[in-house]
Formats: sequence, structure tokens, C-alpha cells
Amino acid sequence: MGQYVAPIRDMQFVLHEFLNVSEEFKNLPAYQEIDADIINQVLEEGAKFTQEVLFPLNHSGDREGCHFDAATKAVTTPKGFKEAYKQYVEGGWAALACDPEYGGQGLPVSLNNSFYEMLNSSNQAWTMYPGLSHGAYECLKEHGTDEQKKLFLPKLVSGEWTGTMCLTEAHCGTDLGMLRSKAEPQLDGTYKISGSKIFISAGEHDMSENIVHLVLARLPDAPEGSKGISLFLVPKFMVNADGSLGERNGIACGAIEEKMGIHANSTCQMNLDGAVGTLIGQPHKGLQAMFVFMNAARLGVGMQSLGLTEVAYQNALVYAKDRIQMRSLSGPKAPDKPADPIIVHPDVRRMLLTAKAFAEGGRALTSYIALQIDRELNHPDEEVRKEAAGEVALLTPIVKAFITDNGWIATSEAMQVYGGHGYISEWGMEQYVRDARINMIYEGTNTVQSLDLLGRKILMDNGAKLRAFGEKIKAFVEENGLDESMSEFVTPLGELGEKVTKLTMEIGMKAFQNPDEVGAAAVPYLRVVGHLVFSYFFAQMAKIALSKQDSDDKFYVAKLHTARFYFARLYPETAMLIRQARSGSANLLAMDVELF
Amino acid sequence: MGQYVAPIRDMQFVLHEFLNVSEEFKNLPAYQEIDADIINQVLEEGAKFTQEVLFPLNHSGDREGCHFDAATKAVTTPKGFKEAYKQYVEGGWAALACDPEYGGQGLPVSLNNSFYEMLNSSNQAWTMYPGLSHGAYECLKEHGTDEQKKLFLPKLVSGEWTGTMCLTEAHCGTDLGMLRSKAEPQLDGTYKISGSKIFISAGEHDMSENIVHLVLARLPDAPEGSKGISLFLVPKFMVNADGSLGERNGIACGAIEEKMGIHANSTCQMNLDGAVGTLIGQPHKGLQAMFVFMNAARLGVGMQSLGLTEVAYQNALVYAKDRIQMRSLSGPKAPDKPADPIIVHPDVRRMLLTAKAFAEGGRALTSYIALQIDRELNHPDEEVRKEAAGEVALLTPIVKAFITDNGWIATSEAMQVYGGHGYISEWGMEQYVRDARINMIYEGTNTVQSLDLLGRKILMDNGAKLRAFGEKIKAFVEENGLDESMSEFVTPLGELGEKVTKLTMEIGMKAFQNPDEVGAAAVPYLRVVGHLVFSYFFAQMAKIALSKQDSDDKFYVAKLHTARFYFARLYPETAMLIRQARSGSANLLAMDVELF
Repeated sequence: MGQYVAPIRDMQFVLHEFLNVSEEFKNLPAYQEIDADIINQVLEEGAKFTQEVLFPLNHSGDREGCHFDAATKAVTTPKGFKEAYKQYVEGGWAALACDPEYGGQGLPVSLNNSFYEMLNSSNQAWTMYPGLSHGAYECLKEHGTDEQKKLFLPKLVSGEWTGTMCLTEAHCGTDLGMLRSKAEPQLDGTYKISGSKIFISAGEHDMSENIVHLVLARLPDAPEGSKGISLFLVPKFMVNADGSLGERNGIACGAIEEKMGIHANSTCQMNLDGAVGTLIGQPHKGLQAMFVFMNAARLGVGMQSLGLTEVAYQNALVYAKDRIQMRSLSGPKAPDKPADPIIVHPDVRRMLLTAKAFAEGGRALTSYIALQIDRELNHPDEEVRKEAAGEVALLTPIVKAFITDNGWIATSEAMQVYGGHGYISEWGMEQYVRDARINMIYEGTNTVQSLDLLGRKILMDNGAKLRAFGEKIKAFVEENGLDESMSEFVTPLGELGEKVTKLTMEIGMKAFQNPDEVGAAAVPYLRVVGHLVFSYFFAQMAKIALSKQDSDDKFYVAKLHTARFYFARLYPETAMLIRQARSGSANLLAMDVELF
Repeated sequence: MGQYVAPIRDMQFVLHEFLNVSEEFKNLPAYQEIDADIINQVLEEGAKFTQEVLFPLNHSGDREGCHFDAATKAVTTPKGFKEAYKQYVEGGWAALACDPEYGGQGLPVSLNNSFYEMLNSSNQAWTMYPGLSHGAYECLKEHGTDEQKKLFLPKLVSGEWTGTMCLTEAHCGTDLGMLRSKAEPQLDGTYKISGSKIFISAGEHDMSENIVHLVLARLPDAPEGSKGISLFLVPKFMVNADGSLGERNGIACGAIEEKMGIHANSTCQMNLDGAVGTLIGQPHKGLQAMFVFMNAARLGVGMQSLGLTEVAYQNALVYAKDRIQMRSLSGPKAPDKPADPIIVHPDVRRMLLTAKAFAEGGRALTSYIALQIDRELNHPDEEVRKEAAGEVALLTPIVKAFITDNGWIATSEAMQVYGGHGYISEWGMEQYVRDARINMIYEGTNTVQSLDLLGRKILMDNGAKLRAFGEKIKAFVEENGLDESMSEFVTPLGELGEKVTKLTMEIGMKAFQNPDEVGAAAVPYLRVVGHLVFSYFFAQMAKIALSKQDSDDKFYVAKLHTARFYFARLYPETAMLIRQARSGSANLLAMDVELF
């Protein structure tokens, strides 16, 4: 049933050598005492928990799935899930990156991030239960009333309660402006909420004693569209002033969905029938408040695909070393065996290295953005916070869309390494592909992400955020341009940087004439920028690796090879993407709908 | 549960206008009387059968799957499968393209091909039962003894019995040279065969009264490796001289696999325990005989993905016209509704057109190769037969790998059009993605296909087959080069032709130094050549469409748009692929295995 070993060495490389987080933490008052030892210790403990407790439940959870009992409206999670969750809560894992004010351990987001990669590698479906709680925690912490914070945050932090986000309705997913759920104000200041939600991940389950639903609904006097949506806190069980559980609230699961993957996570239809809720944030400003949650969730989805990419790679690698089939075209490599291990075949290498490079690039990117979040939230200098916030905004859609697209490619390639066995459930590889597929869809489809990047994050501020990030790249290119050993990395990086600038200006000009040009270019554009970021990070990692080629630690040789593979085999996608992004909207829109 | 309408208009365009088959058939004695009326009638009847009988069983078959009873070793297919098969046999569909000498209807392969597209669009898992029979028929017809033909062909032709190919063993799939199943000669001229096979599609089921297994095994005096493999006919039930069924033979299903998709097709472990078989063809020449079957199967797999591409496209299109969500960036297109149908959004168009173009290109390619098979088998002029055989050999791995890779992309894009609903089983889209995935693996993985194309079909004859096909392209480019309205198609076609020539020579030279260069380039190379073929065919189709722009039939306008989309959005992949194919083997092989 496969294996998972947390890639601690590479995580350490990224945190300590690529990002030098301990130095960064010295500038962040909350984290000044977080040194390399603490980081390494958390990584090791996290590895133990995920490898030993969660990974063994991944395949069985997929086969068993969740069960819904229509009579009691209860959802039963697969065998072992509840017990694993208890261990997670008792181990204090839920509280890792939460505020000590509410019982959290106060560790940095950038460390929690590595732990989340492990969680997702070992069991994406399981991880979605606590994963959504963390988003609810962040949203409440920023927008909740003191009362809400006092009653709910400590339990979300400890993990005793979990959270959900209730946005989608059957007729609206992307277009939340159309949502119909209603909230009637009551005399006591609460609201009675009625409506029907779909696709609510972890909406009902048996892992925690209460579930904190964050629900979007309309007040009676709400303006139409997305400006008339408010956010409410609707607990499964009412909570008394002393924190004890009260009555069952009028929100219940009506059914769970049969899905392509993530079978072990309950995807619920939630019916609200006069459920009691309290307002979070301002009336009609629910979407803005929810965006805190959604941005966290988008990064979380990127982490899911990073996790799947890594575990799929690891398993494919084991198989490729073990499975013997055919001889190498350049002569036997294992003459003592009846055939060579398939890892000798160039195309098997290509598939493995694709997954490996996507995992390592994704790890660098998500760790980088997590550190920027730490700076955004904790740096004493407002300018630094603002700059970090700009990068987080710019990179969030890239983490979500680029990494999940890559995860789809990587898991599929890793499965292909197995040949026919990859398609057979018991080998475990096809689950990774099925699980990976949802990540391109939920929390805003990858098309929505690309529009967010190109339309909102780049064109709306005339490219300021992109330019700021581009300046860093330019500085790196100039700094290393004369170093001959770096030219194989710096030259393509510099070229791509210039092409992105040109492409952005070109699309911006066209969009001025015709807004559809944004929609026509956005998806390939996002991937081009994703490659620019990967190129920049791989070049930096190659630089570190080059400086350590004399080391006994062969890790640096491997890192250098992976960077070379990236530039030789994955970077060339930009040649396609730029042509597509430049091809304009006419090839998409000129044909009448009736002619399809 | 979705819909399927056989794309008869486009099939007619391909057969009558693009290929002009009726004219071609006049040169083929066996088919001289097959005119457009007959063709259209078969297409219409085929559409009825597949739309009304098979398509309604596709989703239910996936949900139900096959069941294996360990006590009786029997496999039960999903509800309705048996009855549909009875209708298929009674309708004479199994016999469509079979030789009248054995009860066949003697229709051309190129017509059967269109019917197979419909079968696969409506139900790939079901189609694999009769689909494999046809391959067994072709193999027996070419290599069987008179006795074998007399006893088995009429029943395979009528469809009363089905066929399988029993190649793979647990330790060898691609590398059949390692297979261990043994055949002991008996005094009566038969053989007793023992061994264990895996991944035998339709190896056991309840749809026909007998199953004809074609089994690879080793004779006692067999040389080692792939030159010591013989092919045997092993029926499930022995067949008496009068054609009646005799005793149960010693071949039985041991288990069926749980898979990612094609749940309704039984993937069997088959155990042979002294099963009685008769030799097909020469001793130790089993692989050559099997290649007839395998080549047919490879084309069949391409048809599977073409079918899935088409049906996924159709459903995504219906959804995209119906689902309203957000406004067009360039202003409301359906102001009377609360939002616009999502087909107004450029990126939804991109996804739809990707599937549409891959379907139409795939249809042109598979129909073209089917016609070449008709010529190869029936043309009175040996030169023509030889030329046709060369094209069939060249294009077979492209049909298998290029169309199945495209099918994976297309079904995934079509699913993405549905947003979250695409991931939910009841909408039917995720099944297409899961079913499509196996097609990249079985009958020789797509890597194996690429090695077959580049190594065997191109480099081994110094590019003669590719050059012959390239001459046709060159002639077309020259003929249309001065036609301004054609330049948007002819220019990129001509450029790609030249690039393929250069690329082939370059790889050939490198391979001379290092055979691993073939393996390092093969996969992207195959896709480049696939695009060359698609470019050639889309340019030809565009030419026909251009000549009919004054027609009332808006079909030609749509065809022209689709060709334009292809060149603007899909053809640019060649810019990436050529870079990848040229990047050499070092980026794959330089890293030591231990460093992965």
C-alpha cells in the first residue's frame, strides 16, 4: 500500500538555506525565539504523526468513504479517522500556528506550512477536516466580535471543534452574488437563517463535538448581487455563555455527494431551517470577511496538491527502482537480473523528474509565501508588512492554480510509471490522481484564479505588484549574470522576465480595447508567471547547490540536477503558453454559440 | 445523466468530403458497391443503437461494476449489459466489417471505424467485450489453421462468442520476453497450457456462451526471451468437431481487479491449469502473430479516447449553454437572465474548443488510417497496398498515443467546464476522465508507442515512411501556398513540416552516438508528429470549408473556426515539444539513481 516519508531534508533546505527563516524570524517579535532546533524538532514530530497515524488511513479511507444516515442526518467518517483526529488534538497539532491568546502555540505560518504538506501527502481527505477549521479560525480572529472570539476561538484552536465555510448554493458557485439564503434579524440580536448550501466540505462528521459553520446569507434589506451578502456564524450546537454545548441548531446535512475522489471527506448538502446565527463583521460585507478564509483556503489547496505531488513521486520512485522490465537502450545496467529496473529508461526518468521538480518548486514557492505571510502579520515595519502583503496577494492565485495544475500532471505521470498497475486501486496511485483533480476546481476554479491574477492583482494596479517582484528577479539576474556557472539558470530566467513584462503590457493594451482579452489570455498567462517564479526559485536553489558541490552531502548534487531538468524540460512550456496567451480572443469568441 | 448524439454530420464530412471514400471504394473490388447511401444508412442505424441501447448503460455500469463469484469463478456484468449484447449480435453489428466467407457483412474498415467511435462514445467499458473479439478475429483469420478458422471464426463474426488476448503476467507487461506460461505438446497435436495471466480484459463474463482466449506461452524447447513465445487458441469451453460446445477447459478467472475506471469491463486474472490449446501460426513466432491483434487493438484504443473526447465535449457544451454564472467581461450577453450562460466566457470557450478540435482532428486521423487499412487489404495494385501499409504502420502509434493523450486533456477540460459539479459522480463527467486514463497505458504504454514510432517506424528505415507522408504534405503546401485565404493554415503547416524533418535528422544523428537519445526524445517527438498530422488534416478540412462558405449549411463556418482555433491554441504546443525533444538525454540520465 505504498509509503510516505516526510521530505525533511528538502524542507530543511528550503527553510534554512533557501529562505533562511531563523534570520527572518529575528525581525519578527512574535517569533524571535524560533530557531533551527525548534523548527527541526517540529518537522520530525510532524513526520512521525503523519507517517504513522494518517498515511495508513489514506487508502482505506478512500475505499470506505463516508456514510450518511438519512434518519439521524449523521455522517460517519472512515474507520480510524476519529481516533486519528483525537491524537491530532491531543498532540496540540491544531494549535500549532495559532495565537497563544486563544491557546495556540504561536509558531510561524511558515513552519505550519511544512506540517501541512506532510498532512496532505499522508491523507488529503482527512486533512480537510482540520484544514478548514484553521481558515475559520483566521476569519473569526480577524472579523469576529469579542463574544464570538471568546466562545469559539479556543475550541477551534484546540481542535475540539471544527469549522466549515458555507458559500455555494446549487445555482451559484463562482457567482456568489446570486445566492439566496436568507437571514432574518431577531430581537435578541441573533439571526434566523434559512437556505440550502451544497459542496460543504466537512459539513457534517463524527470527529468533533461541535462544528462551527461560517455561512453566507442575505439580510432582508440587502442590495442585490455580491454587495448584499453577509457572513454569519452558525454552530451545529448552540453554545452557552459558559462555553458548554446547548441545543442542536437548525442546520443539518441533507445528503453527501459521491465524488471522483477525496471519498473520505464528507461533501455535504447543508440545509438551514431557521438556524440561529450571529453576524460576523459588517452587514452586507460578508464577502470581504470571507476572503480572509478564502485566501487561506486557496493556499491550503495549493498545499494539497504539493502534498500529493510529493507522495506520488516517492511511490513512483520506489516502483521504478524495483520493477524490472526491458533492457536499457544503451546496454544492460543490471546484467545480473533478467531485465533492468525501469528507472534506467529515459522516459521513466522524465516522468519521475517532472514530479520531483514540481514538488521541489512547489515547496519553495509555498514556503516562500508562508514566510511572507509571517512578515505581513508580524513585522514591526509597516512598509515591510505592505510589501509582503503585496507578494502574498500576487502569489496566492499562482500557488492555487499553478501548483494544482502541476499536481494533476505530476500524479498522472507518477501513476504512468506503474504501467497497468497504476490503474489498479490496490497500488494506491490512481487515488492520488483522483484526489488531485478536485484541487483545480474548488476554492475558485483555476480559471477564476487566473482572472484574479491577471485582472485584479496585475492589471488593476497597473502591474505594480508584479513589477516589485520583478525587481527582485532583475537584481538577482544582474548579481549573477557574470557568474559562468550560473548562466544556464540566469539566462533563461532573465529572458522569461523580459517576456513576461512585454506580454503583460501587450495584454493590458488589448484589454483596454476589449475586456474579453483578459479572459482569453488569463489561463496561459498565469502559468507563464508561475514558471517565472519557479525559474527564479530554481535559479536561487541552484546557486546554493553550486556553492556546496564539494560537500559530502550528495543532496546538493541532486538539487542541481533537478534545477537543470526543470530548465531543460519544464520551462519550455513557456514557449507554448506565451503563444497561446498572445493569440487573442477572436479564436475563442468569433464563432456563434449556435455553431458549436 | 447526460446525453450522446452521434456526430453523423461530421462523420459524413470526414468520409464523403475529406476522404471521398465512395470514390476510393471504386478502386477496391470488395467495396465497389458501397456508396454514400449505404454509408449514411449504417451511420444512422449505428447512431440509434449506440444512443438508445448502450449510452443509457454507461453510467449505471460504472456505478455497479462487474462482480466475481469466487465459488463458481463466474463474472457477472452490470445490469443490461447482456441484453444489450444480445441486441448487438442480433442486429448483425459484430459482423459489420468481417469477411462474408465467415458470415460477415463485408463492409469496409473505414465504415466500421465510425461505428466504433459511436460505440466508445456511448460506452467504452461495454465496447471492450466485442472490441477484443474483433482483434481475435483478425488474428485468427491471418494466422489460424483451416480447422481453427472453420470452428471459431463464424462464431466470432456473429458475436456469439467473444475473444481475448492473454499476454501480460504479473512480472511482465511491456517485456513479454520474460513470460513464463508453459505449453506442453500432447500426442494428439494439442497443447496443455499452464500459467497465470493478469489484466485480461473481458477474460470472463456472462455475455456470450463461449470465450476464445488467445494465449502466449512457451514451448518446452523455446529459446529464451521474446523469440521463444508461441501463440495458442484456448477456448473457455472445448469445441466439438460439429461446432457444439464440449467440456469446460482448464482456464478460469481467479479474481477481477478494482480499477480507477472502466468498472463495467472485467479485468481478469486468468489461471491456466493444463488448459487444452491449439497452436496459432508457427512455434516461437507467437509475438509476430499477436502483432496483428495488437495493432488492431492499438487503433481500437485510439478510438476509445476519440469516443470519450466527443461525448465529453457534447455534454460540456450542453452545460455551458445552460449554466448561468457571472457576466461576460465585455458586458451582459443575456440581460434578461440574472447572469450569462458560461459559454460567453473566453476560457470556457477555450476548454470546449480544445475538446472539439481534438475530437474533429482525431476523427479525421482515425478515419484516414481506417481507409488506408481498406486499401492495404483490398487494393489490386501491390504498390498501393505497400504504400498504404507504410502509412498504417507510421500512424498507428500516433493514433494510439496522441489521441489518448488528447483524450485525457479533453475529458479533463470538459469536466472542468462543470466546475464543482464535474467532480460529482451523478453528473457523469468524472467517469469520462477515469475511463480515458487507461487508454494511455494499455496495449503498450504511450512511451512504448513513442519508441515504436521514433525507433522502429522512423529511424529503422531511415525515415522512408515519414518522408513518403511528408511528400504529400509538401505537395499540399505547394499547391495551396499562393492561395491567400489558405495561408493562415498552410504557413504553419509548412513550417512544422520543415521542423520535423530537421528534428528527426538531429535525433537520428545523436542516436547514432547514444541510443538513449531515442528514449529521451521519443515522447515529445511523437506529439510533434501528431501535430504535423493534425495540421495537415485541419488545413485540408479548412480548404473544403472555405470553398463552402457561401453554403446555407453553417457547418462549414464552424469547421473553419475550429481549424483556426486549432492553429491558434493547440498547434503552439509544438514550440514546447520541439525544445523538449531537442534537450537531449543528459538532463534525464546524468543523475545517479541513488540521488533521486
